[in-house]
Amino acid sequence: MPKIVNRDHRREQLAEAAWRVIRREGMEGVSVRSVAEEAGMSLGSLRHYFATQSELLSFSMRLVTERVRKRIVSSRRSGDPRVDIESLIGEMIPLDPERLAECEVWLAFVGSTPAHPELRSLCEEVHDALYGFFRSIVDSLLALKLVKSGVDAELEAMRLHALVDGLVVHGVSRSPKATPAEIMRIVSYHLDSIMTQ
Amino acid sequence: MPKIVNRDHRREQLAEAAWRVIRREGMEGVSVRSVAEEAGMSLGSLRHYFATQSELLSFSMRLVTERVRKRIVSSRRSGDPRVDIESLIGEMIPLDPERLAECEVWLAFVGSTPAHPELRSLCEEVHDALYGFFRSIVDSLLALKLVKSGVDAELEAMRLHALVDGLVVHGVSRSPKATPAEIMRIVSYHLDSIMTQ
Repeated sequence: MPKIVNRDHRREQLAEAAWRVIRREGMEGVSVRSVAEEAGMSLGSLRHYFATQSELLSFSMRLVTERVRKRIVSSRRSGDPRVDIESLIGEMIPLDPERLAECEVWLAFVGSTPAHPELRSLCEEVHDALYGFFRSIVDSLLALKLVKSGVDAELEAMRLHALVDGLVVHGVSRSPKATPAEIMRIVSYHLDSIMTQ
Repeated sequence: MPKIVNRDHRREQLAEAAWRVIRREGMEGVSVRSVAEEAGMSLGSLRHYFATQSELLSFSMRLVTERVRKRIVSSRRSGDPRVDIESLIGEMIPLDPERLAECEVWLAFVGSTPAHPELRSLCEEVHDALYGFFRSIVDSLLALKLVKSGVDAELEAMRLHALVDGLVVHGVSRSPKATPAEIMRIVSYHLDSIMTQ
C-alpha cells in the first residue's frame, strides 16, 4: 500500500526548513538545495512540491501570516474586548519562540527587499494582510463604541500596524529593553490612549 | 608636497561604499574586499582605515545615526514647536533618497541580527541612540506643557520610537500605501493624539 503523504503538510515542512535556514544563515543562505538538505530530502523530491525557488520563498513568507491567522481564528475569546484585543495583537509579537521565529523570518524578508526587489510584491501582500488584521481590530472597537472621540479608522489602523511592526523589530533585535513584558506594556499604554475606560 | 587626506572623510567615503554594497547586494555582499573594490581602493589601503571587517561594519552602521544627529543639530527651528517636532521626526523617516539610503542600511543590519548575533550589540547601541532622540522630543513637549494629561514620558518615547521604526519598515518596503506623504500623515495624526491643540 503506498504511503499517503499529505501534500500541504509536506509543503509546510519544507517552508519550516526554509525558516530555519533563513534564521540561521540569513536570506543569503536560502536555495532549493540548502532547504532540501535541511529538510533531509532530495532536490528532486523538493521540486515535486515547489517547482522554483521563488515559489518556495513565497510559500515560506505567506506561511507567516497564515500561522498568525490560524492562531487568531482558533483563539478563545474571554468576552472582555480589551483582554481579547491585547491577546490578538500579542499573536503578532515575538512573545514566545514560535512567534519569534515567524517575526524573524518576516523581518529577514522585509530587510532584504532593497537588495532583492523581486521580493517586494510578496512583502506588500503580507503587509496588506497584516493591515487587514489591524483594521478589523479598530473596526470592532468602533462597532463596540469603545474608542475615544476623534479616532479615524484608517489612520488608527495604519498607526497600530506601524506601532506593532516597530515593536516586532525591537523584539527581534532582542534589545534588553524590548522584553515581551515591556512590549506588551507599550501595547497596553497605546490601547489605553485610544479606548474609553 | 604630500597630498593631505582627511582620515575621517576617507572613512566616511568607505562607509558609504559599504552602504551601496549593502543596498545593492544585501548584508551577504559586504566584505572588506567588496567594499574596497566599490570604493576604487586597494585592500591594503582600506586596511589603513579599518583594521577589520567588523570595524568597517560598526562604523557604517553608526554613520546612520551620526548623519541623523548632524541634520537634527544643524536644522533650523521655525519657532513653532509642532512644526519643528514634525520636521525632527521627519529626519529619521525615508522621505528622500538620502534618508531612504540610511533607513535601508539600518533595516538590513537589524533584519540580519538573527543570523548574525555579532551585530546585535551594535544594533542595540543604535537602538539606544534613537530612543534618546525620541525621549528628548517627548521631554521637550512635556517641558513646554504641550501634551495632554496622562502622558508617561518613558512609555510615550518608547511608543514613538516603535511607531517611527514601523513607519521606516513600511517606507523601506515601499508599499504603495507608505508614501512619504502617507507616513507623515500618520506622524501628524499621532502628534495630534498626544499634544494639546
